Amino acid sequence: MEFIINQAEWSKAVSEVSRAVSGKATNPILTGIKIEAKQNSLNLVGSNNDMVIEKLISTSEKLEIIHTGSIVVSAKHLNELIKKLPNDMHVMLEDNLSVKIKSNEIITTLSGFDAGEYPVLPEIDHSDGFQLTSEELKNIVKHTVFATSKNETKPVLTGVHFTLQNNSLICVATNSQRLSFIKHSLHTDLNESFILPSIALSEVGKLYNGYSTEIDVFIKKSTIVFKSNNLVVYSRLIDGKYPSTSSLIPEESKTTLIVNTKDLLNAINRASIFASESRNNNVKTQLYDDSKIIVSSNSSSIGQIEETMKVKNVSGDKELSITFDGNYMKDALGIIDQEEIMLCFNGSFKPIVLIPRGKTSNIQLISPVRA
Amino acid sequence: MEFIINQAEWSKAVSEVSRAVSGKATNPILTGIKIEAKQNSLNLVGSNNDMVIEKLISTSEKLEIIHTGSIVVSAKHLNELIKKLPNDMHVMLEDNLSVKIKSNEIITTLSGFDAGEYPVLPEIDHSDGFQLTSEELKNIVKHTVFATSKNETKPVLTGVHFTLQNNSLICVATNSQRLSFIKHSLHTDLNESFILPSIALSEVGKLYNGYSTEIDVFIKKSTIVFKSNNLVVYSRLIDGKYPSTSSLIPEESKTTLIVNTKDLLNAINRASIFASESRNNNVKTQLYDDSKIIVSSNSSSIGQIEETMKVKNVSGDKELSITFDGNYMKDALGIIDQEEIMLCFNGSFKPIVLIPRGKTSNIQLISPVRA
Repeated sequence: MEFIINQAEWSKAVSEVSRAVSGKATNPILTGIKIEAKQNSLNLVGSNNDMVIEKLISTSEKLEIIHTGSIVVSAKHLNELIKKLPNDMHVMLEDNLSVKIKSNEIITTLSGFDAGEYPVLPEIDHSDGFQLTSEELKNIVKHTVFATSKNETKPVLTGVHFTLQNNSLICVATNSQRLSFIKHSLHTDLNESFILPSIALSEVGKLYNGYSTEIDVFIKKSTIVFKSNNLVVYSRLIDGKYPSTSSLIPEESKTTLIVNTKDLLNAINRASIFASESRNNNVKTQLYDDSKIIVSSNSSSIGQIEETMKVKNVSGDKELSITFDGNYMKDALGIIDQEEIMLCFNGSFKPIVLIPRGKTSNIQLISPVRA
Repeated sequence: MEFIINQAEWSKAVSEVSRAVSGKATNPILTGIKIEAKQNSLNLVGSNNDMVIEKLISTSEKLEIIHTGSIVVSAKHLNELIKKLPNDMHVMLEDNLSVKIKSNEIITTLSGFDAGEYPVLPEIDHSDGFQLTSEELKNIVKHTVFATSKNETKPVLTGVHFTLQNNSLICVATNSQRLSFIKHSLHTDLNESFILPSIALSEVGKLYNGYSTEIDVFIKKSTIVFKSNNLVVYSRLIDGKYPSTSSLIPEESKTTLIVNTKDLLNAINRASIFASESRNNNVKTQLYDDSKIIVSSNSSSIGQIEETMKVKNVSGDKELSITFDGNYMKDALGIIDQEEIMLCFNGSFKPIVLIPRGKTSNIQLISPVRA
């Protein structure tokens, strides 16, 4: 194996595949990156037990392949080294277990592993697939990952539930106390649903951050593959049955308010200073004087805060008092770009429904907590 | 107590005195900030067992005192709250143990402590003092704090040694393996030396960051006071005898090199990738071919790096090979603004001396380690 490669190009690629590599992998070869020089490209692979990232760099004025071949070297050290090297690199296999990297007057030798011992990549079945743009994918990540459960006792809730149906993709995340739902239109004949680990989805979102591209998505048994021009991400899917959530979103509501998203977020942020001392970050909202809400919280030891906010529109029942987890409300409001939001209530013991005004493709639910 | 104050003004002041406040103080009143409204100013005090920060805001269009009085309230909650309030605040003592803060339609009540129970500030003796500019102070912090010992077994080495003598101030920090020395000229009749805790010095540096002002420094027994227009910082001094360091800096050297500071720093940074696997971050430097140095390091498990660097000038003995802690060299080079640096050697077992070219007021020493 021997090639000459541009510093910036290689550094970016190595740092991308390194995202899948853990320094703590029990199998030492998985702490490494597989480097494979092919006739017309350099392939890099990083993986852990849950996901694999494969990056391809085609030959160009930035990459010249002199001899094909392969090796696996420590992701951490390769990543650190390449970032700090000043110039184009001349990379040569010394033997199957070490590689020499030369940049200007700097000569480095890195020990490695035999690439033949690196796990083989899963095969991709190109039949069952659909397409997303990187923008759509980032939007799904933004609207779902935060709402998944951090608790491993119900593994399915640590993932995001994808449903393909009637030319649409519905993604749902919930931790039982809050839920976020987002719907995208797309062309697909598939009728399928699966649960993607939130960590993998989040990583895929980060990988495509800064790219603007079409992504092919394939599903095969327990694996999902995201594939674009020069980047392929494989992730395992979570086994199990996701709870039915479609019936949770009420069709009607007793009281509907329209408020300014940012004003409400600021009020919740302030109320949370005291709420953080209570068990559920209790923040209380009350309708007042038919056209205002009072957002408040209190802690017996520290103090209390009470804020009166104008509401743009109130319809339905004018009696309303509900207590919820301020952190969940902060998260929910934080992902909304729309200036105004519709808050729908069905009494003190039913979830609050949040719908960005003019964008019904995203719906969020927050359950009340005991006052 | 009652006053009306500008949000930005108060938020900045509260955040400054909060620097001295620990949420973990064993005495609960020390988790608070003392707020005292006087006839013509608002005084804020935050403290811990080692240091006190006092900030004074004079009445102006940004502060109107309506009634004098005082209270102590939680630093953490006051700090968080004020940052998040949108506008001028109307602050009123409710009783000795709580305060009401009103900003627009937001009403907050904070529980507190009786200000009468807050520790009394040390008295300042204005006779024994000298003056520093905030720029000089920041320069002292930059050149000393990093080189102090993090190990409490020799408490004096966790501080910075100040010596006032012959119209100059000499500051020295060392952890026994490296030393940094900086000298300032100033007008003083004082002949005195003392040891200032590095944490306090570092905090004082941060407080004066962004200010450009004259600072009066007073020393009284075991306390040092930094005093400017509206900010006073008190710190305890460290008891004990600081080791004599003046004889450590050699007058002559066997070999002297002049190198580009940034090139050497980059080389050390690269070598440190492998050095971090060895016990002392071993980086080796060898003189080679009379006009070059080789910077190298290696780890039997990971690999090795070797870099050839041009030297601008070599004088004295041409035989040189020395191994040192790469992290110490990184720290030392990192604070040097001069383009070139003079490296002085007295053999493999004597400390390396670093002098920024054209700036002998700062000298650093790094002891060699076993290769």
